[in-house]
Amino acid sequence: MPEDHPLAPLRHRLLQFAQARDWLQFHSPKNLSCALVVEAGELLEHFQWLTDEESRNLTAVKRDAVAAEMADVFIYLLQLSTAMGVDLVRAAEQKIALNEQRYPADRARGHNKKYDEL
Amino acid sequence: MPEDHPLAPLRHRLLQFAQARDWLQFHSPKNLSCALVVEAGELLEHFQWLTDEESRNLTAVKRDAVAAEMADVFIYLLQLSTAMGVDLVRAAEQKIALNEQRYPADRARGHNKKYDEL
Amino acid sequence: MPEDHPLAPLRHRLLQFAQARDWLQFHSPKNLSCALVVEAGELLEHFQWLTDEESRNLTAVKRDAVAAEMADVFIYLLQLSTAMGVDLVRAAEQKIALNEQRYPADRARGHNKKYDEL
Amino acid sequence: MPEDHPLAPLRHRLLQFAQARDWLQFHSPKNLSCALVVEAGELLEHFQWLTDEESRNLTAVKRDAVAAEMADVFIYLLQLSTAMGVDLVRAAEQKIALNEQRYPADRARGHNKKYDEL
Repeated sequence: MPEDHPLAPLRHRLLQFAQARDWLQFHSPKNLSCALVVEAGELLEHFQWLTDEESRNLTAVKRDAVAAEMADVFIYLLQLSTAMGVDLVRAAEQKIALNEQRYPADRARGHNKKYDEL
Repeated sequence: MPEDHPLAPLRHRLLQFAQARDWLQFHSPKNLSCALVVEAGELLEHFQWLTDEESRNLTAVKRDAVAAEMADVFIYLLQLSTAMGVDLVRAAEQKIALNEQRYPADRARGHNKKYDEL
Repeated sequence: MPEDHPLAPLRHRLLQFAQARDWLQFHSPKNLSCALVVEAGELLEHFQWLTDEESRNLTAVKRDAVAAEMADVFIYLLQLSTAMGVDLVRAAEQKIALNEQRYPADRARGHNKKYDEL
Repeated sequence: MPEDHPLAPLRHRLLQFAQARDWLQFHSPKNLSCALVVEAGELLEHFQWLTDEESRNLTAVKRDAVAAEMADVFIYLLQLSTAMGVDLVRAAEQKIALNEQRYPADRARGHNKKYDEL
């Protein structure tokens, strides 16, 4: 990954953090995926009993708590991208390009059908 | 969020994609968190029966499949950051700073205890 | 676990199924928990974009698909209970008793606050 | 569901618990699926950094904590079965019968390929 990659500084800092604690031994793709899904669950916990509308109108305190869970998901995703040698930004761009093909705007507009049901 | 933010281009493209399909109506924080956890599960599915060691040595085909799931998680995380007005990079930096306090290198080295067990 | 336990027949059948395929080697508590969370994600996938109301009014076809995902979650939970030597029914009864203490009916009525916020 | 169903007493007790707190309004299939996946994540959290071997050899204290998370998953699964009118035991039996067809013992023995890869 080039040094000027938008996520390079964050990945670099996370790598140093893990190395200083001798934690890379635990950072297998399997373990990092477990940790990611655990954090994703903690994120969802904030919303599980809320209505859709309530989830769009959080208090500032709640919003900060949600942002902290999002950070945890992001951190494990970055560490996984390091462990796997995956460029997250490029992978996302490729997936968006695929979704643009799978979901033509005129056929996908305003509903939520999966691409194989369009 | 400033225009020169490292994730601004990706977020902008995702926003246009959703707007063109009139999908923002579905993008409540609750729904996006559900979608994120679903994709996190699909990511983990690739590893569920693998040993730690096997998860570190995927074939190229498997690695691409995993990268595509990571992209899905990232995409929903970016859309959630837009819906919540959260700066993912700053949130991650704040969380890393907190973790540096919670896990002093000399006490956290080489094991996996949670910060309240150190 | 006594032979007349309500879940004994199902657990027995699952054990025979796994033994006949030499699969117990894969059934560590860690792997079974991974598999369980993956299936829980597949269950949630059916609901991720639905409104609350829509989720209460599924078509018969959709309902059967959801029931099949619930079965998968239940199967991994039963296999985990075997791997851990945990009596699921008794564990649930103990948790319900705890919840009855944590959430007194008169204080918990009609809202969703967590017990430490009551 | 017949009164002599093996899970009838537990489901009945959970229904009374929810009714006494006026909580059925929150128990849509969508919300219960969210809650289930959150608890599944809490279950996995206990194992995320453990080796397979360590997960098979928990201390008694840890084992009880895991059993409590399993109870939470089971409770939400039972409540979902009530909300959806699904017989969990029958759904599991049907899924096991399907798996017996998909994974013939002689071809599935000793490895973890998915049925469409056998």
